[in-house]
Amino acid sequence: MNPKITRFLAEQTPATPCLVVDVDQVEARYRALGKALPLARIYYAVKANPAMPILTRLVGLGSCFDAASWEEVSLCLEAGAHPEDISFGNTVKKVSAIQAAYRAGVRMFVFDCREELEKIAQHAPGSRVYCRLLVDNYDAEWPLSRKFGTTVESARDLMLEARALGLDPYGLSFHVGSQQLSAEAYEAAIARVASLFTDLSDAGLDLRMINLGGGFPIRYREDVPEIDHFAGAICRAMTEHFGNALPEMLVEPGRFIVGEAGVVHTEVVLVSARGRQDGPRWVYLDIGRFGGLAETEGESIRYAIRTARDGSPTGPVALAGPTCDGADILYEKSHYDLPLDLRSGEQIDLLGTGAYVSTYCSTRFNGFAPLSEYYI
Amino acid sequence: MNPKITRFLAEQTPATPCLVVDVDQVEARYRALGKALPLARIYYAVKANPAMPILTRLVGLGSCFDAASWEEVSLCLEAGAHPEDISFGNTVKKVSAIQAAYRAGVRMFVFDCREELEKIAQHAPGSRVYCRLLVDNYDAEWPLSRKFGTTVESARDLMLEARALGLDPYGLSFHVGSQQLSAEAYEAAIARVASLFTDLSDAGLDLRMINLGGGFPIRYREDVPEIDHFAGAICRAMTEHFGNALPEMLVEPGRFIVGEAGVVHTEVVLVSARGRQDGPRWVYLDIGRFGGLAETEGESIRYAIRTARDGSPTGPVALAGPTCDGADILYEKSHYDLPLDLRSGEQIDLLGTGAYVSTYCSTRFNGFAPLSEYYI
Repeated sequence: MNPKITRFLAEQTPATPCLVVDVDQVEARYRALGKALPLARIYYAVKANPAMPILTRLVGLGSCFDAASWEEVSLCLEAGAHPEDISFGNTVKKVSAIQAAYRAGVRMFVFDCREELEKIAQHAPGSRVYCRLLVDNYDAEWPLSRKFGTTVESARDLMLEARALGLDPYGLSFHVGSQQLSAEAYEAAIARVASLFTDLSDAGLDLRMINLGGGFPIRYREDVPEIDHFAGAICRAMTEHFGNALPEMLVEPGRFIVGEAGVVHTEVVLVSARGRQDGPRWVYLDIGRFGGLAETEGESIRYAIRTARDGSPTGPVALAGPTCDGADILYEKSHYDLPLDLRSGEQIDLLGTGAYVSTYCSTRFNGFAPLSEYYI
Repeated sequence: MNPKITRFLAEQTPATPCLVVDVDQVEARYRALGKALPLARIYYAVKANPAMPILTRLVGLGSCFDAASWEEVSLCLEAGAHPEDISFGNTVKKVSAIQAAYRAGVRMFVFDCREELEKIAQHAPGSRVYCRLLVDNYDAEWPLSRKFGTTVESARDLMLEARALGLDPYGLSFHVGSQQLSAEAYEAAIARVASLFTDLSDAGLDLRMINLGGGFPIRYREDVPEIDHFAGAICRAMTEHFGNALPEMLVEPGRFIVGEAGVVHTEVVLVSARGRQDGPRWVYLDIGRFGGLAETEGESIRYAIRTARDGSPTGPVALAGPTCDGADILYEKSHYDLPLDLRSGEQIDLLGTGAYVSTYCSTRFNGFAPLSEYYI
């Protein structure tokens, strides 16, 4: 576990549940990604963790930002980002949000359908736009495909339409799904985008940008391929399809930048055999699916757990949150083992919880206050 | 739709998304339940909606309260409830929460395992305790069974143990699952509880209370059996098993009291054919699974929808929330139809959203502020 966070927890003994994020590690991850993909501009996906200490650190490093809402645009500006370094990256935007972002100087917007394109043309005239393609999500542990993106055929028509509407038809994007374990997903998506680049060029429209989305995986319980593995595959695919005429490349990492930098510190509220000798013990924590661990839905994201008793004999457990909701179960099928002498009142740590935790947290489900956050 | 809420929305035109709850309708539902089950004391399940106007109205009506946390206990006290009218109804409680509730005068606690019983004995000495049994959830649309409750055998041992620990072994509880459509679920659970009453009486321990939990269904898209149907089945089962020696009866309704009294007013952010002529249109709202509609997970709870264009020709739609999260889809498989001329920027209403909406809402996922609430 991150030694800086370990020290902070030992010295400060903050009340649980809380999230502690090492902002230096965020910086290290940003730099590592920049080194692996030197030709790509990094647009940090603010939704992964919009805490001000993270945004200001990234602004200082020269990061650009992918915002999901006017509120996130506004946070980036507050952190010191220039509006031209912000992409409004949600394909679903209220007119009032487009207007507010445009007034603030944002000039890059995504879309994936004609209706949204027309809204952008009307309320953010002349802006750069890019169209999101539907691509295969392969081995993503938190897939995205059904809700967003359009077909190659439709994207072709829409990019031509964008020009006709007075917009700047800038490029194409895709998202292979979050926590994507397969580099092939990027390769296949790049091939699809490249064919459309060619097709549109034949139609007299030269696109300049390819947005590779995010999805780069981080370590939870299991090892994942290193970023160099993905970067290598991306570079090979880009060179294969574009040769020396590489378009601008954008990436939108969120989880990759902040995930491993965070630790959720939580109290064991109860350990119970539930009256059965044959089943697993049930371990109830003071954080659950509605306290921020939403990505445990379907047991999709499986966090690594550290206890003060690591090394002593373990046995199988089911893990659940503190609410009266039957759906507030973290892991029943994912074969977690915890020390046999773990007791209620003890504290344990959930690693890799810097991304997509603090923001999912409910306002007060079952009366519980939102997760406290510390950025160190 | 509720005429008082219709008038409020027309006159006040509040910004979307928002939740509007008719507190008079909450009162009417409370009274209806009291009339259907005159022998049962009502412990309102605060977690369904802990808004102060609801709690104060219910205090005025003489309601008791089922609290899921110390924070909910505290809210009830703030609303004017007496501590003896509060049940700490979460089987998973922090020691600090038990201590705080006990200090505040709360003397009724639930448990479902030895570890929790020992915590209560130590930190809330002499209190009334009841044990939660695991029962079949039959046709519950939001089931609860795996996480809570214990076996009849274990409950028997634990109630005897409770006495030995100096606690007051008050009774037994069960929960048939929320939005339960089958009266048989209550009948079967009562039979199970009754056999344990007898068994414990033979062992020299006379229990005095049966807590029937909640779960009474409300109308969403489809009609559900009336409360009298459930009340009749419960009374018959109680009489069959207990004769004239009826124990005290408690119920813990949440959804039944507040669900139908609430309307979520939301804006259509986008309507899109997504480049396909054969599929449904996609309708994106400014509220989704992470803005409060958590019970649409797995399309479990299917809200009725009202539009200003009701009556005009309709076609199939998929419904999704406003965030960049691929999991933020409300309904894809539940065969929703909406007017063909529905357009982005228009407002629509989700009915029956008074329960389990405001509190599930995330603090700021994708930057969106929590749902505004109006109690009228």
